[in-house]
Amino acid sequence: MSFSITARRSLAALFFGAAGLLAYGLVTAEGTDAALLERARGVFRPLPSTAHVDDYPHSPDRVELGRKLFFETRVSSDGRTSCASCHNPSYYGADSLPRSVGVHGQPMPRNAQTVFNTPLLISQHYGGNRVSVEEQALKALTSTFAYGNKSYEEAEEKLRALNYGPLFDKAFPNEKEPVTAEHWAVAIGAFERTLLTPGPFDRYLKGDTRAISDDAKRGLDKFIGYGCASCHNGSTVGGQSFQKFGITEDYWKATGSVEMPQLKGRDKGRFHDTGKPEDMWMFKVPQLRNVAMTPPYFHDGSVATLDDAVRVMARLQLGRQLDDRDVKDLVAFLQTLTGDIPPQFANVPVLPVAPFRAN
Amino acid sequence: MSFSITARRSLAALFFGAAGLLAYGLVTAEGTDAALLERARGVFRPLPSTAHVDDYPHSPDRVELGRKLFFETRVSSDGRTSCASCHNPSYYGADSLPRSVGVHGQPMPRNAQTVFNTPLLISQHYGGNRVSVEEQALKALTSTFAYGNKSYEEAEEKLRALNYGPLFDKAFPNEKEPVTAEHWAVAIGAFERTLLTPGPFDRYLKGDTRAISDDAKRGLDKFIGYGCASCHNGSTVGGQSFQKFGITEDYWKATGSVEMPQLKGRDKGRFHDTGKPEDMWMFKVPQLRNVAMTPPYFHDGSVATLDDAVRVMARLQLGRQLDDRDVKDLVAFLQTLTGDIPPQFANVPVLPVAPFRAN
Repeated sequence: MSFSITARRSLAALFFGAAGLLAYGLVTAEGTDAALLERARGVFRPLPSTAHVDDYPHSPDRVELGRKLFFETRVSSDGRTSCASCHNPSYYGADSLPRSVGVHGQPMPRNAQTVFNTPLLISQHYGGNRVSVEEQALKALTSTFAYGNKSYEEAEEKLRALNYGPLFDKAFPNEKEPVTAEHWAVAIGAFERTLLTPGPFDRYLKGDTRAISDDAKRGLDKFIGYGCASCHNGSTVGGQSFQKFGITEDYWKATGSVEMPQLKGRDKGRFHDTGKPEDMWMFKVPQLRNVAMTPPYFHDGSVATLDDAVRVMARLQLGRQLDDRDVKDLVAFLQTLTGDIPPQFANVPVLPVAPFRAN
Repeated sequence: MSFSITARRSLAALFFGAAGLLAYGLVTAEGTDAALLERARGVFRPLPSTAHVDDYPHSPDRVELGRKLFFETRVSSDGRTSCASCHNPSYYGADSLPRSVGVHGQPMPRNAQTVFNTPLLISQHYGGNRVSVEEQALKALTSTFAYGNKSYEEAEEKLRALNYGPLFDKAFPNEKEPVTAEHWAVAIGAFERTLLTPGPFDRYLKGDTRAISDDAKRGLDKFIGYGCASCHNGSTVGGQSFQKFGITEDYWKATGSVEMPQLKGRDKGRFHDTGKPEDMWMFKVPQLRNVAMTPPYFHDGSVATLDDAVRVMARLQLGRQLDDRDVKDLVAFLQTLTGDIPPQFANVPVLPVAPFRAN
């Protein structure tokens, strides 16, 4: 459609003298714009309006329960840890730390990724050991790093003691036992599936070529042309495959990554989860949605700035040394992937008032 | 004024036959209402609209900076602790734990009180070792329990690295060095001084006698008559004096309080701060604003429910055994002290994007 508008304007330009000369400049820019948009549409898609799926039916009550549970700290073994501890609205759904801090202040070996748009990814976590956001939320309950409960039953007892019964009843009507760890996970998933962050790039993909700057357009052109988009593509601009980190050289030579005591050495990526030699150094490709808002970068937060992260990626994955102009353009493009924080996430819910663990 | 309206209605009642009989009932209720309101006004005041004071000039930029700093975790020594860790919007400005969890997951010996309305109190903390909210915010930076910085300089360096410079410049114009620990404290104080929570009881005190229920009115009557209001008075319904906890018997016999390793035994209140024998067992009287929303109760969160807390207080401080009706009425009154969460607090700010501690 935008092509035919361009064609019509092009025709008009032939008829209108001086105005035509002016219009000719526009036509050229628009012609380029149209071609770039066409290429972009072959690689990327706008974000959908929600990430709900048939496997996990949702309702407003279920989403609202999930919203509350997301911010609930009292189910954790130190009483202070919630999903929001590592996925904090103040830091665009991440925690702005190189590596996260778990329950009881434990150091974690990896960087927390933003919760935004994650239901659309191939899996959760850098090693892909959690497929859905629901699986992630369920297993977090008994993870010694996350909530630290000894069993799902322990978590369920806390939820009942915290007066969540009536909210689970509403969210899971006609269930014999509404308060279960599985329902905790389904409710949190229902909430997380609403946390999508369309931004200027989506408006661009939908045809508004003025939604992004000329720098960003040059960056987009390079992002596709240099090969970044071979892994970072789709609606989430990445997050759809596992790839080896460090094609041209060992990743830690470029990132300065240190050994992790919890991983008994270098982080070997998916290998820690599968034990398969072919998974050595394989990591989930991160989505790049909101990447400008979520430093530091890589699985261990070893690179502080987006400029440096872009340089490192070009060098390690594509064998390319970027110049300053490249970096400026690519970063300008990446900034168009910043969306607004969903209001249901920025606005923190009041949680059930409950007698709690008094002694 | 409400007295003269009553008088006029009373006069009208004499003239209007059957309507007069009906009106007479109203007159009686209104007469009682007017008398109770008059007594209440002798003890309590509505909350002011802000708690700003001349000593700490404020501006919108200063309040907004304080709001950001309140939620900022990266200034703490574990990168995960902010004012909001213990003063969480989800729990009405407290943390809903018996005793708080400090930086690096350290157990704290005392219960966190709500941040709402606290600038209006005689001091901060149960022992009163922080007079203003500004002093509290300043000293928290180097407290080993709170932010755990080794010095104010360390905190200031972090603030600069986190890109707070321009925000301090705006909030503290014409200052040679805007980014200082003192300005951190003044900004956070400026924000906290906006966190007041008027509720139904304020509307009542301003003359709307239908703003609170009949149960609540009976509770108010008892609250004054039984002597609760001798300590819990003023606009904050407490928080204006230090008193001995446990007049009629040792407090731990009623509360079940256990010894605290950090305090080397029983919590002796203000004595831990002053070392004076006369301060033994003296605690700041808590405000009762939002008390229904902030269990568990007392300095160590040793009592789980508001019903039990009311019984314990009557027994320990006033030597009175309450019956179930008393408790119901008193709790109904206390519930009228619940205000709405200020929107600038529930709505969490986005914090500066900054390269942070990458290695």
